[in-house]
Amino acid sequence: MGECMTETQQSPVETVEGGAPGIEIPERRSHITIPPDPTGAPDPTGAVTSAGHGSGPARQGASSPSDGQEAAGILERTRLSVDPELRSAVQSLPSSMRRVARYHFGWERADGTPAAGNAGKAIRPALVLAAVEALGGRESAAVRAAAAVELVHNFTLLHDDVMDRDATRRHRPTAWTVFGVPDAILAGDALQALALRLLAEDPHPASAASVARLASCVVELCAGQHTDTAMEERRPEEVTLPEVLAMAEAKTGALLGCACALGALYAGAGEEEVEALDAFGREAGLAFQLIDDVIGIWGDPSRTGKPAGADLIARKKSLPVVAALASGTPEADELAALYGEPYEEGELERTALAVERAGGRDWAQVQAADRMARAMHELSRAVPDPEAAGGLLALAEFVTRRSS
Amino acid sequence: MGECMTETQQSPVETVEGGAPGIEIPERRSHITIPPDPTGAPDPTGAVTSAGHGSGPARQGASSPSDGQEAAGILERTRLSVDPELRSAVQSLPSSMRRVARYHFGWERADGTPAAGNAGKAIRPALVLAAVEALGGRESAAVRAAAAVELVHNFTLLHDDVMDRDATRRHRPTAWTVFGVPDAILAGDALQALALRLLAEDPHPASAASVARLASCVVELCAGQHTDTAMEERRPEEVTLPEVLAMAEAKTGALLGCACALGALYAGAGEEEVEALDAFGREAGLAFQLIDDVIGIWGDPSRTGKPAGADLIARKKSLPVVAALASGTPEADELAALYGEPYEEGELERTALAVERAGGRDWAQVQAADRMARAMHELSRAVPDPEAAGGLLALAEFVTRRSS
Repeated sequence: MGECMTETQQSPVETVEGGAPGIEIPERRSHITIPPDPTGAPDPTGAVTSAGHGSGPARQGASSPSDGQEAAGILERTRLSVDPELRSAVQSLPSSMRRVARYHFGWERADGTPAAGNAGKAIRPALVLAAVEALGGRESAAVRAAAAVELVHNFTLLHDDVMDRDATRRHRPTAWTVFGVPDAILAGDALQALALRLLAEDPHPASAASVARLASCVVELCAGQHTDTAMEERRPEEVTLPEVLAMAEAKTGALLGCACALGALYAGAGEEEVEALDAFGREAGLAFQLIDDVIGIWGDPSRTGKPAGADLIARKKSLPVVAALASGTPEADELAALYGEPYEEGELERTALAVERAGGRDWAQVQAADRMARAMHELSRAVPDPEAAGGLLALAEFVTRRSS
Repeated sequence: MGECMTETQQSPVETVEGGAPGIEIPERRSHITIPPDPTGAPDPTGAVTSAGHGSGPARQGASSPSDGQEAAGILERTRLSVDPELRSAVQSLPSSMRRVARYHFGWERADGTPAAGNAGKAIRPALVLAAVEALGGRESAAVRAAAAVELVHNFTLLHDDVMDRDATRRHRPTAWTVFGVPDAILAGDALQALALRLLAEDPHPASAASVARLASCVVELCAGQHTDTAMEERRPEEVTLPEVLAMAEAKTGALLGCACALGALYAGAGEEEVEALDAFGREAGLAFQLIDDVIGIWGDPSRTGKPAGADLIARKKSLPVVAALASGTPEADELAALYGEPYEEGELERTALAVERAGGRDWAQVQAADRMARAMHELSRAVPDPEAAGGLLALAEFVTRRSS
């Protein structure tokens, strides 16, 4: 349920430059940019066909309005204000659950001694606070809501790692490998309960609506994770693009959208603004996932910390791969054949090249640009003043600028 | 987290009569009764010593004020009013989660065709509604709260079955054996979220406090389940009675207490009454667990649907066993030796006898009577009018009258 953002994005700006050895990477400088007029965005359903052969993003080359400094500042401030709330919430757990949670957050080692901790970048709580501010609310009044969103995120990580049997998270052994499957499941259950209790106990008038919204989001995250695990059983060419996009929206977009919507609720915004901010977060989340999937194939191993072509080695049905398989090109057939067998010498590179030549990489980048355009459009609906929207804009760029 | 109540209690009145072949069962007619004056209850910490050798419950033989008909009527009415709410909540889930939940509730077969369904006896929702009524509230206003409690109960069952690798629940294959571990985990996660959302969306003024209370209860259930699974790794003689009692309270008592407390909140009761009803439910839950553990050793297989001495075969550290091991009697040593090795011919019967001769059975029955006395005392604090308290009393007797 959305583990990628924390798993692979270890530095503010990552890169696909360099790529896997032996793979030619055209358009190295093509990065996702924000078209000034979102209504001119390409039709996403036709993107593979219309832009699938090297045409690149429509408005490629425009300089980013933010250099990431603003986002880094927001994230740092968020951690400073939300961390104490988060720690005090976790501290309220019975010792058995607290121990697993503190380890998972990186605050403790497996033996219970304190650790310097890398609890993730706090993108989701930052979105809550930035959304409150964008809509004229008080950030300080929404710290609990921000902590609740982060607790839900971490509950899903604990459970996803169990289901996916992932052994590493944030460069450390996952909780289930250290404490066993039952305790990882229970700690996840407890974090979900803690998140919703924290919100319910908040005397803020948005509390009840926020509990209901965050709980609905949990259900969507579960459905997304179900689709993801179910897809693993299917052959890659049986998986359709709309399915993978819907899965990415449920698994990654839903909680980013919910974070923004909770911020709007805490600012006392009306229903239309709340929904627009939810849509903003969802679209930005999809843009992120598309870029993340590009990096999963062509990312620089020295930056990603993963081997070159990691997602191809894992036979992941990532968005560029599914787009390539659906392209109707000869390379799609080659890719299907390569995905069906263990790689021999040179076949990893051939696979990456087939995805690229079938238009999968360009499609993902055009789609990401389109999703960001939609995100900006939704944002401008809820927050017409560009200055007020600045924090949310900076965060959205931050999560999607990793291909620059 | 409290699976026993639904797992073994398949008919309103079960029995230990008959017992395992070859085991002499003295005091077959000793059943848990309600002392009219709870202050006369024996000291629970000294119960094994003071009543551990055949003295039986203090007020044994008093006729029960209810024959179970009243409870059966309350449970039937509860199912009729809560079932539609429960079904409509589950219906709101995405199809992937809905499918698992509907199977788990017994409404559907694994292939998705409708089933006649045995979704459990609805003890917990009945406690919610009976508590509302006892405190002068409107039952109809608390139907959502009752459904929320039942959803939480079923979330814990789904997860417990995964953790305990239990293959059967309510005489059917457990959800994880049918849909796989990931979907069982996800369906449980979704049911927790659904429960808290249902409460949060309730326009009733008790909504927020009830969400917080139910979420806190989930954390306690998790801690109880943790203790239970952790105990399995330990030698029986290392486990102490206070530990097992605390585990039973967290795993079984907490949700019964929470159900009663939510009813009180929905009746607009004050803090003192809410806490007294919580304590009532907890104590009744402990009494239930004690009786359930007696049945797990001496229950009639034709009634329990389990082999004679099922809990002994599973080497369960149940309350009578731990009490017997802590008794300091020669039989305690014999029991420890028998629990350490596979049973040979006749040793199952010898084990049951050792638990009994070490006072484990009597201790459990005296404890159960004591817990029921405490429960009645708490009930009378919150609801002094015996007529108003009648429904709760009938339900408490119902869950603990299985040894009669």
